[in-house]
Amino acid sequence: MTSIALCTINSSARSIARLCQVSRSAHGTADLHSFVARYSTLRKCAFLQEGKWSFIRVGTRQMSQASPGRISLGRYGRGVFLAAGAAAVTGILTAGVSHFQRAEMATKISKVDEEEGNIRERCKSFMSVPVTDIKVLEQRKDAMSTRMEMLIMETQAAFCRALEEVDGGSFKVDRWSRKEGGGGISCVMQDGKVFEKAGVNVSVVYGNLTEEAAKQMRSRGKVLKGKDGKLPFCAMGVSSVIHPKNPHIPTVHFNYRYFEIEEADGTKQWWFGGGTDLTPVYIDLEDAAHFHKTLKEACDKHHPKYYPDFKKWCDNYFYVRHRGETRGIGGIFFDDLDSPNQEEVFNFVKSCAKTVVPCYLPIVNKHLNDSFTPEEKDWQQVRRGRYVEFNLVYDRGVKFGLATPGSRIESILMSLPLTARWEYMHEPTKGTKEAEMLEVLRNPKEWI
Amino acid sequence: MTSIALCTINSSARSIARLCQVSRSAHGTADLHSFVARYSTLRKCAFLQEGKWSFIRVGTRQMSQASPGRISLGRYGRGVFLAAGAAAVTGILTAGVSHFQRAEMATKISKVDEEEGNIRERCKSFMSVPVTDIKVLEQRKDAMSTRMEMLIMETQAAFCRALEEVDGGSFKVDRWSRKEGGGGISCVMQDGKVFEKAGVNVSVVYGNLTEEAAKQMRSRGKVLKGKDGKLPFCAMGVSSVIHPKNPHIPTVHFNYRYFEIEEADGTKQWWFGGGTDLTPVYIDLEDAAHFHKTLKEACDKHHPKYYPDFKKWCDNYFYVRHRGETRGIGGIFFDDLDSPNQEEVFNFVKSCAKTVVPCYLPIVNKHLNDSFTPEEKDWQQVRRGRYVEFNLVYDRGVKFGLATPGSRIESILMSLPLTARWEYMHEPTKGTKEAEMLEVLRNPKEWI
Repeated sequence: MTSIALCTINSSARSIARLCQVSRSAHGTADLHSFVARYSTLRKCAFLQEGKWSFIRVGTRQMSQASPGRISLGRYGRGVFLAAGAAAVTGILTAGVSHFQRAEMATKISKVDEEEGNIRERCKSFMSVPVTDIKVLEQRKDAMSTRMEMLIMETQAAFCRALEEVDGGSFKVDRWSRKEGGGGISCVMQDGKVFEKAGVNVSVVYGNLTEEAAKQMRSRGKVLKGKDGKLPFCAMGVSSVIHPKNPHIPTVHFNYRYFEIEEADGTKQWWFGGGTDLTPVYIDLEDAAHFHKTLKEACDKHHPKYYPDFKKWCDNYFYVRHRGETRGIGGIFFDDLDSPNQEEVFNFVKSCAKTVVPCYLPIVNKHLNDSFTPEEKDWQQVRRGRYVEFNLVYDRGVKFGLATPGSRIESILMSLPLTARWEYMHEPTKGTKEAEMLEVLRNPKEWI
Repeated sequence: MTSIALCTINSSARSIARLCQVSRSAHGTADLHSFVARYSTLRKCAFLQEGKWSFIRVGTRQMSQASPGRISLGRYGRGVFLAAGAAAVTGILTAGVSHFQRAEMATKISKVDEEEGNIRERCKSFMSVPVTDIKVLEQRKDAMSTRMEMLIMETQAAFCRALEEVDGGSFKVDRWSRKEGGGGISCVMQDGKVFEKAGVNVSVVYGNLTEEAAKQMRSRGKVLKGKDGKLPFCAMGVSSVIHPKNPHIPTVHFNYRYFEIEEADGTKQWWFGGGTDLTPVYIDLEDAAHFHKTLKEACDKHHPKYYPDFKKWCDNYFYVRHRGETRGIGGIFFDDLDSPNQEEVFNFVKSCAKTVVPCYLPIVNKHLNDSFTPEEKDWQQVRRGRYVEFNLVYDRGVKFGLATPGSRIESILMSLPLTARWEYMHEPTKGTKEAEMLEVLRNPKEWI
């Protein structure tokens, strides 16, 4: 229904609606890490001490403690965005222009967002030096790949610092490289005071797409012609799953990613994907409304259809079919987003990335000292089991990553909780808080 | 290599070797339950009291306690079997005869196994009345479907009684039916004294094969022609997974199943599948040797190649590819077994089914009072996580079951442990017992 209504607005909106229909067949969390992690090896750890980056070589189970100073999150309140109407106009203006031409145009467009400042200075706040050499980033500072790498590094740092502040513990930082090009930075806090398992991954990889990976692309409607079967690509993203100890604090997941693929004729295809979603153990209407409202506000700055369409896509994607339940109470999810133009989509993704802290941290703080019973902990563990079921059975990114020989499995599976439980024939008694939660998962609803 | 060597022996052995090559593409545990469970509903519970069967209607989380008297396991020591040489001769004799003709011949062959006695009398020892009405079973007592249903019911009872004796607890018995025909009996003991989660399932289903199910058949080399796309079938089996609490007692899994499918021209295809395998948390050479030796003895009574071929098939099937590890230390695994003839394959399956108690119970009893540390319990939980990974990512039966709308999910997923754990970058220190276990999983070895 949505798609029909949209056709009357403009072509870019129609493109979005079409993508929404892909729903359950789209990529998920660990998507990028499957590219990223091929033949990658854990090499060294980077940490910031007294404003300087240091490295140590690490083996298995030896990881440095990241102990950088606190960074300002003040930046996460600003941002100038195109209004939805303007986006529609841009969409019409760029109609009939190839992806590559649009990409060219986008990089030439004067920056509407002035907050991207000195690269070397910005890097100081990161959890590790970026994957790409800082000199290279400086040389091509206007390229989308540079701007996105800076954004995902910043998102990782902002989220990790916010979690560290509330937990009191520190993230362990693994910096790993990939033989064919690129690498990643995995930040993990395990068995903390507040968080049972918190993982925030960045990966930036490049090389040639394998035939299998190309097939994955095609299944999403992208017909890509390679030269001698090879498709040079660049893929990057930030992804995170946070499992808290207290059953009254929900699990959160987010992932923002960017792909660039060069075809045989030199045409460059690019697109963004991402989303943020919440998985509570017990429903709290106020939390749900806050979470969705924060996402909606970020979406509304860019297009009035983004929130309703991407909310629906999220409910469809995170559906545990064999249980007849969604994984959680959703949020937003989108993929293959390449219109109206690169600048505007990047700005949208930036808005989304900057909501992860304001979406989640207020909820964490609110429930920090909530008491809970062993029965509530048990119900949390049963829900964790369902989380595992979704991630291992349905998440296309995980499936693709596991099927790719030489993947960095630990980065792909760090989304799994520390502990989970499967009880035979578990069904909450009618009228309980557990039954109320299940009712919501079985019948996704509008939260705002 | 095995298959080439076998070609010089006889055609039936060659057929076995060919099947071995299917290896990782074969069906697993919950295979049958996917057929079984379509649109099934939990209806009632059956229990034996003072030698009489009673039923109660059960809702969710309300299950009757099975409290039948002890049954003699003495029967599980006997059995007359054809020697491997004789089997080879039979294989040659039946060469060129259709599956259906062979099935006809098999049911007409005078029983070599005299232990199948009075049906009504035998039913008294079961965990519940059989799925098929006792009168129907009596009417067609020589049919393979009857003989197999009796065998799987007997296997379930024998195994459940043996576990109850060692645990002190009782299995809860769910008898459920399937709208299209047939049903099942699920026996589960959860959070017992010895067993964290023990499930023993029987299912007997009939109806028409769906197109999806038929496709699964074809992928295993069976070309089946249906009438108007419909293939009447009958499928039955017993399957079990036992997760003990003590990390020094291994997890065991077994599954024995029988399929009958009628093609458009009336031709009946039938085959057996099954296997038993062990998943220890710590390696115990004596246990491994006992387990494999018991299986080998059962196999050797039927064909000298069964144990080595089905041992290899088992190692291949239970391989967690993304971890580069097998799930456990293996055992035997086979599928699509339809030669040399129905009688002989049934006798082989019977031998296997009768080994489950002598394979496993001596190991349980040996370690019953072993003390363990919290660290050993943690390692068990990490290994349980790997068990979940195999079952949800690779087990074809589980995958098929989850993809089938209306499946009885609780029967399919009762193989998952009560609790599991995922630690980021978990790798045991060199020289520890944990590292020794991992070494075995990474390099499957010969145990006898």
